[in-house]
Amino acid sequence: MLSDRFEADYLLETPIEVARAAEIIAGEQSSGTFVAVPGETPELKERSAARVVALEVVEEVAGRSLPSGRGPHPDERVTRARMTLSWPLTTTGPSLPNLVATVAGNLFELKCVSGLKLLDLRLPPAFAEAYGGPRFGVAGTRTLAGVHDRPIIGTIIKPSVGLDAEATASLVGELCEAGIDFIKDDELQSDGPYCPFDARVAAVMRVIEAQADRTGKKPMFAFNLTGDLDQMRRRHDTLLAHGATCLMASLNSVGLVGMIELARFAELPIHAHRNGWGYLGRHPMLGWSYVAWQKLWRLAGVDHMHVNGLDNKFSETDDSVISSARTCLTPLFPDKPCTAMPVFSSGQTARQAHGTFAALRSTDLIMTAGGGIMAHPDGPGAGVRSLREAWDAAVAGIPLDVHARSHPELRRAPGVAA
Amino acid sequence: MLSDRFEADYLLETPIEVARAAEIIAGEQSSGTFVAVPGETPELKERSAARVVALEVVEEVAGRSLPSGRGPHPDERVTRARMTLSWPLTTTGPSLPNLVATVAGNLFELKCVSGLKLLDLRLPPAFAEAYGGPRFGVAGTRTLAGVHDRPIIGTIIKPSVGLDAEATASLVGELCEAGIDFIKDDELQSDGPYCPFDARVAAVMRVIEAQADRTGKKPMFAFNLTGDLDQMRRRHDTLLAHGATCLMASLNSVGLVGMIELARFAELPIHAHRNGWGYLGRHPMLGWSYVAWQKLWRLAGVDHMHVNGLDNKFSETDDSVISSARTCLTPLFPDKPCTAMPVFSSGQTARQAHGTFAALRSTDLIMTAGGGIMAHPDGPGAGVRSLREAWDAAVAGIPLDVHARSHPELRRAPGVAA
Repeated sequence: MLSDRFEADYLLETPIEVARAAEIIAGEQSSGTFVAVPGETPELKERSAARVVALEVVEEVAGRSLPSGRGPHPDERVTRARMTLSWPLTTTGPSLPNLVATVAGNLFELKCVSGLKLLDLRLPPAFAEAYGGPRFGVAGTRTLAGVHDRPIIGTIIKPSVGLDAEATASLVGELCEAGIDFIKDDELQSDGPYCPFDARVAAVMRVIEAQADRTGKKPMFAFNLTGDLDQMRRRHDTLLAHGATCLMASLNSVGLVGMIELARFAELPIHAHRNGWGYLGRHPMLGWSYVAWQKLWRLAGVDHMHVNGLDNKFSETDDSVISSARTCLTPLFPDKPCTAMPVFSSGQTARQAHGTFAALRSTDLIMTAGGGIMAHPDGPGAGVRSLREAWDAAVAGIPLDVHARSHPELRRAPGVAA
Repeated sequence: MLSDRFEADYLLETPIEVARAAEIIAGEQSSGTFVAVPGETPELKERSAARVVALEVVEEVAGRSLPSGRGPHPDERVTRARMTLSWPLTTTGPSLPNLVATVAGNLFELKCVSGLKLLDLRLPPAFAEAYGGPRFGVAGTRTLAGVHDRPIIGTIIKPSVGLDAEATASLVGELCEAGIDFIKDDELQSDGPYCPFDARVAAVMRVIEAQADRTGKKPMFAFNLTGDLDQMRRRHDTLLAHGATCLMASLNSVGLVGMIELARFAELPIHAHRNGWGYLGRHPMLGWSYVAWQKLWRLAGVDHMHVNGLDNKFSETDDSVISSARTCLTPLFPDKPCTAMPVFSSGQTARQAHGTFAALRSTDLIMTAGGGIMAHPDGPGAGVRSLREAWDAAVAGIPLDVHARSHPELRRAPGVAA
């Protein structure tokens, strides 16, 4: 790829000839009209038009993935193809918001499109210069959390909503006692009147600072500051004032410009929650792949990215989860990797450590477990230890059942005990 | 609906019993876990849990709309139902970003969900107090554009990218000459090096101010200032300094928090471009309905909302377009209507005026035409006049072909001439 162009890969489905569909899409996303207009000279087109640089038919299938206003023929066949489009950087300059309007704009609605998935993005170095990327990433998070050479073991406060600040802090106290590394707010918990942000931060940080004084290790709590910009600024300053070491924000609630701005002023790692990802990514022939999507947020400056977990309670396959986690750990640019720590969650227990490590070959991750910790028959402390022991075994190449024989907390752990 | 709760309507599809699926979704979006946890007392649940307040089976169909990780039975039947969930306002407070995480969060990914469309939202008055809504809306836009008692007739600069500032201004001069009311940048055109924002504003506003001096009417130009927050602030001030009367921003590029912030500082009407809407709304069983989605932006402060157009070049049906336009003109709150002007575009010509007026019974709209104006055989001036004449006829109840007999520009207009 040339340094003055950017590229996007798509899985395209169309009822018309694929090369024609690709040209229509490239036209819509550059000159922006279906017919030549006065002023659109060959020179201007050569300089400014999007180019179809790869197009490979994958399969023919019966029936459209997405309805079209005018309806398909009942016996229609459609073609699926991998397509790469390329744009001159001069279209947008190195701007993430304008990139999004270009690679993920009107094209999904075109009549010739019966399916379109944005698979990947390749951006020239100018984007690495324009955006900060994660300020903390893996190394900065490990330093703040005081956890090295193994995954960061975390949990989430449950019930998600309804506890007041003192009840939340009391639960945090139990979790600190249990040896937890990381705790996060639920995405529904931000600044409601039953558990105001400031009161929650004050109460929780009092407990966490006491734990740090006692043990020398300060568990990381990701406080959900999602809100309007002025609210996020104010809440961020509250976090700093109380010695907090992480903030959380919901990507689809805040949006791209809000996250770019948050990352510019934030002096704490940004734990990014992907709630709403389902409407962007769940259909196999519509919307965003996680691989393309997470690149925007990492470049914007996110430090932790949610990737779901193996054998999760949602609809996502294990392969998809691992592919998401891998992409977060894959450098964006040779000189600026922008690596974000993948966050595994949803039904996670000691049982998933081996599969996760086998697929990822890395411990640079956060694994959050709810029941996997709280539901341990010997208490949350045993729950946390069972997760660490499972990871020790996975990294050392010791099968789970073998390690469990000599480690009773692992043997009795949720998901491991028969 | 009570004033201390908010509600969301969904179309749900599930392979399991619908009442059970509804309870799982309500649980995930409040207490946030599938099992009761310590601390989740009946009192807390009563106070904080989401409630299923309506659930009505619509149909049973064969096969899932969305794949699930574990795959369906081949002969499976799924149930579709309309579902209404209700949350206490105390969950989130009157916060749009936290509302989004609640009504459109993790629920789309649940295993029991094989399809989920957010159909509508009902918000208590506290939201009207927390957010400004459109500062200009229909009345303010009409005053600035100097257009009353008929639709605002507009167009878009084409080619979308590639023209420099002077070439753009020269095209604007032609369009002013033609009597245009409104012109907009393309969503791909923001601040690229071939047509920098500042140079474009200076060159275009010189032409527009000259037109205003000559005729007393100042055509409205919506300059696309989409970018990072500091860039949008700076570009907004440039617009003010040059006497511009409208700004444009891409909703899905800027995102919710960025748009809320833009609306707080903007002193000009906000023309909102919906590019990317296809990935949010095109699948009938996934994501957002336009009705629900546009409420967020209107409350945030958007003045003009894109709704596509009748007989458009995209895949959307006419019914869907009209439903979108109607919803923009429907008050959000009795005391604070937050009405936004719907913007019709895509393949619009004099031919669509009658159908649009018949369905909408209003002229409070912007209709933008490209070829419908520029491709008129008698030139763009005749193109603009043909659109006005078509609307005159539609409002007066005169059939298009009757009016065309006495109005040669209408008779020869693109889409009208045989």
